[in-house]
Amino acid sequence: MNVLIVHAHHEPQSFNAAMKDLALAELRAQGHAVELSDLYDMGWNPVASGADFGARANPDYLVYALEQRENYKRRTLAPDIQAELDKLLRADFIIFNFPVYWFSMPAIMKGWIDRVLISGVCYGGMRFYDQGGLAGKKAMLAITIGGRPHMLVDGGIHGDLNDMLRPILRGTLAYTGMAVLPPFVAHHVPYIGQDERVSILEQYRMHLRSIDTLKPMQFASMAQFDDKLYPLTDGSHI
Amino acid sequence: MNVLIVHAHHEPQSFNAAMKDLALAELRAQGHAVELSDLYDMGWNPVASGADFGARANPDYLVYALEQRENYKRRTLAPDIQAELDKLLRADFIIFNFPVYWFSMPAIMKGWIDRVLISGVCYGGMRFYDQGGLAGKKAMLAITIGGRPHMLVDGGIHGDLNDMLRPILRGTLAYTGMAVLPPFVAHHVPYIGQDERVSILEQYRMHLRSIDTLKPMQFASMAQFDDKLYPLTDGSHI
Repeated sequence: MNVLIVHAHHEPQSFNAAMKDLALAELRAQGHAVELSDLYDMGWNPVASGADFGARANPDYLVYALEQRENYKRRTLAPDIQAELDKLLRADFIIFNFPVYWFSMPAIMKGWIDRVLISGVCYGGMRFYDQGGLAGKKAMLAITIGGRPHMLVDGGIHGDLNDMLRPILRGTLAYTGMAVLPPFVAHHVPYIGQDERVSILEQYRMHLRSIDTLKPMQFASMAQFDDKLYPLTDGSHI
Repeated sequence: MNVLIVHAHHEPQSFNAAMKDLALAELRAQGHAVELSDLYDMGWNPVASGADFGARANPDYLVYALEQRENYKRRTLAPDIQAELDKLLRADFIIFNFPVYWFSMPAIMKGWIDRVLISGVCYGGMRFYDQGGLAGKKAMLAITIGGRPHMLVDGGIHGDLNDMLRPILRGTLAYTGMAVLPPFVAHHVPYIGQDERVSILEQYRMHLRSIDTLKPMQFASMAQFDDKLYPLTDGSHI
């Protein structure tokens, strides 16, 4: 497989960075071709703006998704976006490796999503969920979080972690058609010792060795909806 | 009241910007003192990094939350963060006005959350949810989205919009102790005409006139959990 790891942590010595390094080494040892987008190291610009487009279809009023489509066709997307889009399009499996900030991605990675997952290629029109432009690819989150497991389940103080991650898992990765593998979650990371860290890294290695057998998460399918996106049944299947 | 509007849209002529302008005018007309953080206009830097701290407690290894606490105490936070934090702390009511990107905030605003909601002030230790550092303030999202209402409900193709917004509503605003008013949502914005836009702005004005009577959303309360954050009951109340 071609693998892309998108990584965002400001401390190269962090446990989060160690997870990224382990995935790089393990997946290469498995024989995969692995590319890395280390967003802090690259100085990635996360701000979507008119500067992202070399030739504006409408120079007087910025409709970002429209300019994405037009500038993709003309090959006039900003070079940093085009380079990341090329990596994304040649990847079969994408790992997003990040520390959870506010139950979501750090802004620098959110800006990778905002700028690289362009309309007209990754989604658009009726091409989303299982009809999305990135169908055929797999995606997975590899995340570190301060909370302990019992805080991140139904009935826990924060509720189920996957419910907090819904805009990413369902609203972004599944939305663009990717098969979403269950996240690998390292809990309580700022508070644990060396032994526990080594143990979690070993668990992550095992997780990466089981990618082919992990069952993707289930989300909506376009076949359940009509052409105005009204549900064909009572929707209770979702 | 002191009101802070945090706004993020790259097109000053957009409908989203018109909502921001309406809120500014309407709330000032009601007699409130309103401040604005127009993030694109300010050239806000959304990337959390070591450069955010004038004096590092640990120069060799960046623990972002630790440096937030230490640099706040020493008054050595980066000036852009300190200025926004001052605005936040003097506000009684904060509106986040943004177009929904990937069922979340644009990266530039996520980076306002990441950098300004600092540990030790806005939350920290056991100070979160109803014990959070921003208790006593109200917050509200004012958002534009491409989807139509039937796509954003339970059983709809994307599920309930508030479930998609959970990391913001519950995991960020409620987490820091703020009372979270129901979002004002302008649907289908890229596809509607002038009449409908005028009508939505009028609805938004009415919404802003009813702030005092809007019932905040319900979230977890610390009283429901023990000192290890295990639920005191079966958690079914959440």
